[in-house]
Amino acid sequence: MTLLQMEDLMRSLTRPAFVLICSVFAPMLLFAQNRAPTHPLDALKTQEYWAVYDVLRDSGKIDSDTVTHSVLLHEPAKDRVLAWKPGDPIFREAEVILVRKGVTIEALVDIADRKLESWRERKDVQAPVTRNEFHELDEVMKKDPRVVEALKKRGITDLAPVACFADPFSYFALPEHEGHRIMMGGCSYTHGVYHGWSRDIEGLQIKVDATQKKVLQVIDEDITPVSEAPVNYQDLETAPRPGTTPIGVSQPLGASFQVKGSEVAWQNWRFRFRLDPRLGAIVNLAGIQDGNRFRSVLYEGSLSELYVPYMDPALGWANRVFIDAGEFYATGHILKPLRAEVDCPSNAVYFDSLAWEEHGFPVIHSQVACLFESYSGEPAWRHFEGHQLSGSGARVLVLRTAAVIGNYDYVLDWRFERDGNLRAAVGATGIVETKAVKAKDAVDSPGHSTAGAGDEFGHFVAENTVGVNHDHFFSFRLDVDVDGVNNSFMPMRLVKRQLNNPMRKSIWVAESSIAKSERDAMMDIHLDKPSMWHFVNPNVKGPLGYPTGYELMPGTTAASLLDPDDGPQKVGAFSAHQLWVTPYKQDERFASGVYPTQSKGDDGLAVWTKANRPIENTDIVTWYTLGFHHVTRAEDWPVMPVMWHDFVLRPFDFFPQSPVITLPPAP
Amino acid sequence: MTLLQMEDLMRSLTRPAFVLICSVFAPMLLFAQNRAPTHPLDALKTQEYWAVYDVLRDSGKIDSDTVTHSVLLHEPAKDRVLAWKPGDPIFREAEVILVRKGVTIEALVDIADRKLESWRERKDVQAPVTRNEFHELDEVMKKDPRVVEALKKRGITDLAPVACFADPFSYFALPEHEGHRIMMGGCSYTHGVYHGWSRDIEGLQIKVDATQKKVLQVIDEDITPVSEAPVNYQDLETAPRPGTTPIGVSQPLGASFQVKGSEVAWQNWRFRFRLDPRLGAIVNLAGIQDGNRFRSVLYEGSLSELYVPYMDPALGWANRVFIDAGEFYATGHILKPLRAEVDCPSNAVYFDSLAWEEHGFPVIHSQVACLFESYSGEPAWRHFEGHQLSGSGARVLVLRTAAVIGNYDYVLDWRFERDGNLRAAVGATGIVETKAVKAKDAVDSPGHSTAGAGDEFGHFVAENTVGVNHDHFFSFRLDVDVDGVNNSFMPMRLVKRQLNNPMRKSIWVAESSIAKSERDAMMDIHLDKPSMWHFVNPNVKGPLGYPTGYELMPGTTAASLLDPDDGPQKVGAFSAHQLWVTPYKQDERFASGVYPTQSKGDDGLAVWTKANRPIENTDIVTWYTLGFHHVTRAEDWPVMPVMWHDFVLRPFDFFPQSPVITLPPAP
Repeated sequence: MTLLQMEDLMRSLTRPAFVLICSVFAPMLLFAQNRAPTHPLDALKTQEYWAVYDVLRDSGKIDSDTVTHSVLLHEPAKDRVLAWKPGDPIFREAEVILVRKGVTIEALVDIADRKLESWRERKDVQAPVTRNEFHELDEVMKKDPRVVEALKKRGITDLAPVACFADPFSYFALPEHEGHRIMMGGCSYTHGVYHGWSRDIEGLQIKVDATQKKVLQVIDEDITPVSEAPVNYQDLETAPRPGTTPIGVSQPLGASFQVKGSEVAWQNWRFRFRLDPRLGAIVNLAGIQDGNRFRSVLYEGSLSELYVPYMDPALGWANRVFIDAGEFYATGHILKPLRAEVDCPSNAVYFDSLAWEEHGFPVIHSQVACLFESYSGEPAWRHFEGHQLSGSGARVLVLRTAAVIGNYDYVLDWRFERDGNLRAAVGATGIVETKAVKAKDAVDSPGHSTAGAGDEFGHFVAENTVGVNHDHFFSFRLDVDVDGVNNSFMPMRLVKRQLNNPMRKSIWVAESSIAKSERDAMMDIHLDKPSMWHFVNPNVKGPLGYPTGYELMPGTTAASLLDPDDGPQKVGAFSAHQLWVTPYKQDERFASGVYPTQSKGDDGLAVWTKANRPIENTDIVTWYTLGFHHVTRAEDWPVMPVMWHDFVLRPFDFFPQSPVITLPPAP
Repeated sequence: MTLLQMEDLMRSLTRPAFVLICSVFAPMLLFAQNRAPTHPLDALKTQEYWAVYDVLRDSGKIDSDTVTHSVLLHEPAKDRVLAWKPGDPIFREAEVILVRKGVTIEALVDIADRKLESWRERKDVQAPVTRNEFHELDEVMKKDPRVVEALKKRGITDLAPVACFADPFSYFALPEHEGHRIMMGGCSYTHGVYHGWSRDIEGLQIKVDATQKKVLQVIDEDITPVSEAPVNYQDLETAPRPGTTPIGVSQPLGASFQVKGSEVAWQNWRFRFRLDPRLGAIVNLAGIQDGNRFRSVLYEGSLSELYVPYMDPALGWANRVFIDAGEFYATGHILKPLRAEVDCPSNAVYFDSLAWEEHGFPVIHSQVACLFESYSGEPAWRHFEGHQLSGSGARVLVLRTAAVIGNYDYVLDWRFERDGNLRAAVGATGIVETKAVKAKDAVDSPGHSTAGAGDEFGHFVAENTVGVNHDHFFSFRLDVDVDGVNNSFMPMRLVKRQLNNPMRKSIWVAESSIAKSERDAMMDIHLDKPSMWHFVNPNVKGPLGYPTGYELMPGTTAASLLDPDDGPQKVGAFSAHQLWVTPYKQDERFASGVYPTQSKGDDGLAVWTKANRPIENTDIVTWYTLGFHHVTRAEDWPVMPVMWHDFVLRPFDFFPQSPVITLPPAP
């Protein structure tokens, strides 16, 4: 049987299922972005973007020099949202960032009342970069005679395939940058390839003033030939490995989740989500339908920031420290489309999202999220006893997006499990950033041998091409509301105790305590000082007398190794601890601050928590740092296989017994 | 549509697929256990057990008092296996443990030549316990007048529902135990329930001599009523949650793996496996078919030992420290059957295994392993660039077993991934061990409050029922053979470096070194001192000049908090480090030694490595400790939901580029 015949057969077998799926899913396609909002936490809708545009235009405060950098839903105060009921008027505000002649302007627009609520010029901050800014600076750099000369020295006279790219600084680098919008640029030579990754022109650095659209300085150091690493994966011939037979999900009666607007119901889970252009998927009001009772777990969960420092002191590399959400989201939308059958299985439904362009007009970004039930063949629980075999299969509801920031793709999952677990997972893939070097390979390069001190700053992934060492840190903001708004953080420390027992000299005991203030809740992972991180509601007792709770269980993660007073680390300071807890504040949403671009590190998690505010039995928010160090390998080239990291929120004395024990064997 | 109608529809839709699957799978059913071995690493076959029995019987050395405790394949020396070719004679030996009048006897039998090769009495060790031993001791304890009296004091006069259970010590507890086979027993009251878990009669401890079948001592302390925690999960009414639609795997053309005897081929993976009654699934000769070349990765991978210390100094609890494989495997088979559709999906094939009973006769243990392809809808890689969406879906081959040691079930996976990753995963489920207490719940018990110092030794899971704190440590033995037998361990440490750069004060650099001897390779996980664990072949260079290698990436894990010189910790000493590396020795297979029962900790990983033997560019074995602390929660009752932990062996400069980049989009 040929592969084609096999595929035909598979299609014919799955067609009835497909028809069914389509008919079940059809109603969901109605939830388009152009409808009026039905809930205060809905994403901004088409006509709301236009309303914002109208209000700003009619305010008389903008002119043709004013560029829209950001239009985001201004999330309402939590108490208002919790008090809101269907039928009530929906309060809607947009927070807008404009830039006019280099000055950042914050505007707050009341959408329903079509009113400009506030207008504030901020000379102390830098707005996130826009796509147009990138394009304009590309032209500016390519036209600079010093750049033209530097390229010529390298034998490059055809400038059409040259792409110059100015990166914002995520941190305040030098005193002379004060008050200026400074970026550090470089060029790549894209002849013969589909993108500039791996084609950097090393040794050439271009400092630009992004406001004046002017090249300030061209540093032309050493000439290193542009890498010729094989990078056109698009042109590779693909084939399944011999003997591969088709595999897929079978869900002949369609999905068992329901979507109404932005509200999802699945099994005993209920939640809302919106697709935010800065933060990606934001899960809201997630909780458990427990008989007739809805029990809250998470008022809001989302990525809060990403911090990616590179580890090479070379020209053009020391400045590569990215605060990926806050610096770059305004180039379009942090989320990029998903490819059906690759990123999500055939039983997935997809969602569009809106963002803005430079005038503030809404732009549709299609298929940037998917929702599906996953079944990997695992048990949810099982036990063998005597002649009995008991258990139940596991299935999971996955809300998936992919944040793509330049070269890197982050597959971002919220996974709802039937045992009450809520798992957040990050799958890193995409193209690693590489540096051209003169040495061909590890043998050729004494600085890149493996037996001793070599390989300091990176690792060859192709000839003359080194993947540069770097870190990835993700801050997840989790507004836990276990059985209500007021919660406490209760770390449980496992502490060794000596015994006077003839048979045992030592055990460990579990010591729980309530964190009184923020400093008590800065948690670091040490294998020799383990702790469990419980979020409890001291006002609600379970049947065994414990407060009901959820536990945050970290997965594999990493801590930052950089100096705390290093510029980049001050901006990415959330990476200093694996867990933080703060009291809820409406405007504390971004772990590296609202404006990480050229930041002095004076906003964000590490700054707010210096106040050491009380966090006991109040509305608290926890921040989990998921991180990993990345030393590249040959297998990461030309696109790295997905590497997953995750953490889980799991019920701990939330249910009176196992919530999956009454499920039948079939998943 | 009713649920029944839905199920009918699903059946009708999947029937063609089912027929196809059956016809594809049918040939596999021929690989039964009763055939002659076709490879030196095959599990012992039916007639081989009988041959061992015959040789021993005919030796004149055994009598009716001699009990067979263990009959295992004596794995041949590695060089002989590697030199072996199909058609060569197959050398087969069995290592047998017998017990006669309390004396342990080790016998080695040459199966092909039907010859007793060695016979050795070992007065210094204790054999693993057998099922018969448990049964006999149950009767002995229940007949002891002191026990009868103690039960009567508790109002228990009907002894039929009383089950007494003597646990072996995993460590040498007291000087007076020297030379005796001592167990510490207790009883449970199983009236109204299907098993004794949670029905322990607390305050009653019975010390027995298992050789003399004699109660040595009865300690009758305090009377605590037997727990009445609801434990009959078997009787609970089960129902899918409202709206649940069927979900399954669709693989209409059948599996794409091939099984021949104990050899498996899937995608570019090739490996063998056998199901060992002591260690479970043993993967052998795993590697990659790379064009015309077979490239070895792992000569052998298996669980080596499990160590489960409990953390309560109370009577009947301080002695609960289990070395789950080495102490208990002789009760039947460490693996227990899998339930179709719960433990493995519908596209799985199942495998039987053989063990022995007290005479050494073979016993078939059915359906103790399954093999299937899994597809959870994830991408293997993806990238978005401009208008392009590229990527490929992921699928995984899973070899699954479940080790059940009393109350606990460990789902054990070897997951072969298409990017060259080999993942080992442990899913812990089953019933937690509980202690009856007088306090009803956390409110009732000042020692179990949550606000302060309470909850020291455990956590209520039901009224009057406390799940006792404990650890789980798994030692995985991984005989890595990357591109050949001689490998080196090359840890890569990420070390902070200060910079004199105007823009950056610090970076980290990667420092690789070759571990010279065992002490250099004892690795502990510290987030502030991260390291990557590479196994390289210094004799084979990849195209970029690096030695070809595989990296062991740990997942979430734990370290033991116990005193190193505590009895239990001396036996479970492998838990002291997360990674160890040793030179290959044929007889170093069990991380806590061959005989952990009543061990003084004088065998095993921590003992062998004291010699600090050289490990550079030689045949090396690595040992990974996967561990977790377990404080129970209400949701763990009556059977805990599966909690997964894993680690992965991933190619690092083994392939010249991403091995999945040439795969088509469909998984």
